[in-house]
Amino acid sequence: MSNSITKLFNIKYPIIQGGMVWCSGWKLASAVSNNGGLGLLGAGSMRPHILAEHIQKMKTATNQPWGINVPLLYPDIEELMDIIIQEKVKIVFTSAGNPAKWTGTLKEHGITVVHVIANAKFAQKCEEAGVDAIVAEGFEAGGHNGREETTTLTLIPHIRKATSLPLIAAGGIGSGQAMAAAMALGADGVQIGSLFAAAEESSAHQDFKKYVVDSREGDTHLTLKKIGAVRLMKNNFFHQVIAAENNGANAEELKELLGKGRAKKGMFEGDLKEGELEIGQVAMMINEIKPVSKIISDLLDEYHQTLQAFSTSRFHF
Amino acid sequence: MSNSITKLFNIKYPIIQGGMVWCSGWKLASAVSNNGGLGLLGAGSMRPHILAEHIQKMKTATNQPWGINVPLLYPDIEELMDIIIQEKVKIVFTSAGNPAKWTGTLKEHGITVVHVIANAKFAQKCEEAGVDAIVAEGFEAGGHNGREETTTLTLIPHIRKATSLPLIAAGGIGSGQAMAAAMALGADGVQIGSLFAAAEESSAHQDFKKYVVDSREGDTHLTLKKIGAVRLMKNNFFHQVIAAENNGANAEELKELLGKGRAKKGMFEGDLKEGELEIGQVAMMINEIKPVSKIISDLLDEYHQTLQAFSTSRFHF
Repeated sequence: MSNSITKLFNIKYPIIQGGMVWCSGWKLASAVSNNGGLGLLGAGSMRPHILAEHIQKMKTATNQPWGINVPLLYPDIEELMDIIIQEKVKIVFTSAGNPAKWTGTLKEHGITVVHVIANAKFAQKCEEAGVDAIVAEGFEAGGHNGREETTTLTLIPHIRKATSLPLIAAGGIGSGQAMAAAMALGADGVQIGSLFAAAEESSAHQDFKKYVVDSREGDTHLTLKKIGAVRLMKNNFFHQVIAAENNGANAEELKELLGKGRAKKGMFEGDLKEGELEIGQVAMMINEIKPVSKIISDLLDEYHQTLQAFSTSRFHF
Repeated sequence: MSNSITKLFNIKYPIIQGGMVWCSGWKLASAVSNNGGLGLLGAGSMRPHILAEHIQKMKTATNQPWGINVPLLYPDIEELMDIIIQEKVKIVFTSAGNPAKWTGTLKEHGITVVHVIANAKFAQKCEEAGVDAIVAEGFEAGGHNGREETTTLTLIPHIRKATSLPLIAAGGIGSGQAMAAAMALGADGVQIGSLFAAAEESSAHQDFKKYVVDSREGDTHLTLKKIGAVRLMKNNFFHQVIAAENNGANAEELKELLGKGRAKKGMFEGDLKEGELEIGQVAMMINEIKPVSKIISDLLDEYHQTLQAFSTSRFHF
């Protein structure tokens, strides 16, 4: 048996690992693909020559399907796309931009294209652009996030009504229960970020992973809405942002406060005080740094238990 | 067959209608109870003598179980609770306060007590106070809302781990698919607000209901976080609040801007420009003013279709 997402990518489980900045290098992505999911390299934090290196390493690390996430606001995007096409990468997830821009070119080269959205208006644009599937990402997701603040629970049924394209739910999915919930809402698969950001194979700094494991409810918050909403973990930098926002700081002032390279500083170099720590709300439920194989087998166990529970009296009336 | 919520209240379906200000009078609550759910009067917008009137009307309108929602910050709460006890109301949902305050007194009088929470810290307090069940309400809910901004998708599994009390999910539930999702996450039942706020039997102003029906994605937003977060629909008043907040308005200034009686003005009197319009994020999915009987039968149809879909290939791999 299979579904539209496992068929589209030719994978065993409809579990996609988000292509996250500073976390999703070849080690993480190949581990996910080797364990039956779809691993994605996160090009957003890689210079073109670094991406080329990771592509080579992926090719030797796995013979299973894998892909690359490309934020469309990437500065050297022409160069990046050239590499992707030359290296005959088969799957590309685009995000943070208009799907009309690159979908045609990529499809001409036989690449399967998926676009990440946060509202139904963009579901329409995805259809027009001819993408093969959609990731719909809710408010609870880590990192950059939609203006509407629509949560996964309300977003997925809304997108499901707006389009018949294969649909991947993202944001707040950190367990097999949440995976079953997402699919009950109309998704055909899930994209999971935070759980994999804290995986053994993630390229994030060990101290950042520990910070995620130690975090509790209310420890992430959507901030910097005036310059592009991003979900961050609370730390010294976060509190500086909140103070500035509470005092009415404008976009220019916030950009200056943010500066450059803060996500690298926090997530890759482990500066937990001054870095920008991007993680999803589900971080509060992550209590252990686990290898990818265990993350996926736990997800599947919980998922199948949930499906079995649907035959119990709690669900029937 | 039954589950912990249908058993606790002796109702047919684990569907609770939220006790919303300006919407949840005896007409709405009795219709829900007469259709197999649990109707709740919303005492938050009723003076004590008005509540007493609604209680009398409920008693003649239904012989099925029903209850009252009492926000614990209600100014004349002693008087209100006296009425509830004297009238032998059997079920009380408390919210917006510490469950330790009233649970004991109510339980002494044989009343079933449920408390509304938005985080696991309060789940612990609920256990200590001896409540019979918990409503866990996520970020997508209309009206007043938790500081942590935890969404229903991440909140329910978190609360399910924190307590074994019967658990009702609230926030973002406007379809049978979302109901199935909430139960997959660990809930035993659901509390639904927005759908019932826009019901024919709701006491909200007709113009407010139409505004809800016409609303689209992104039209509700969590605001006034400095004085108590509340999810509002966008209108002239809302934009005034956002402008003030963007300019760094403090709590005092926001309180002055809010003034008194704005929710009544908007939701009950139909002043769509200057009123405070409380509704959940799921409003974007509400396209019709329906009678309660149809709302509940649609919910159940969608719920059972979703359960059936779990046996199809989309879910199996």
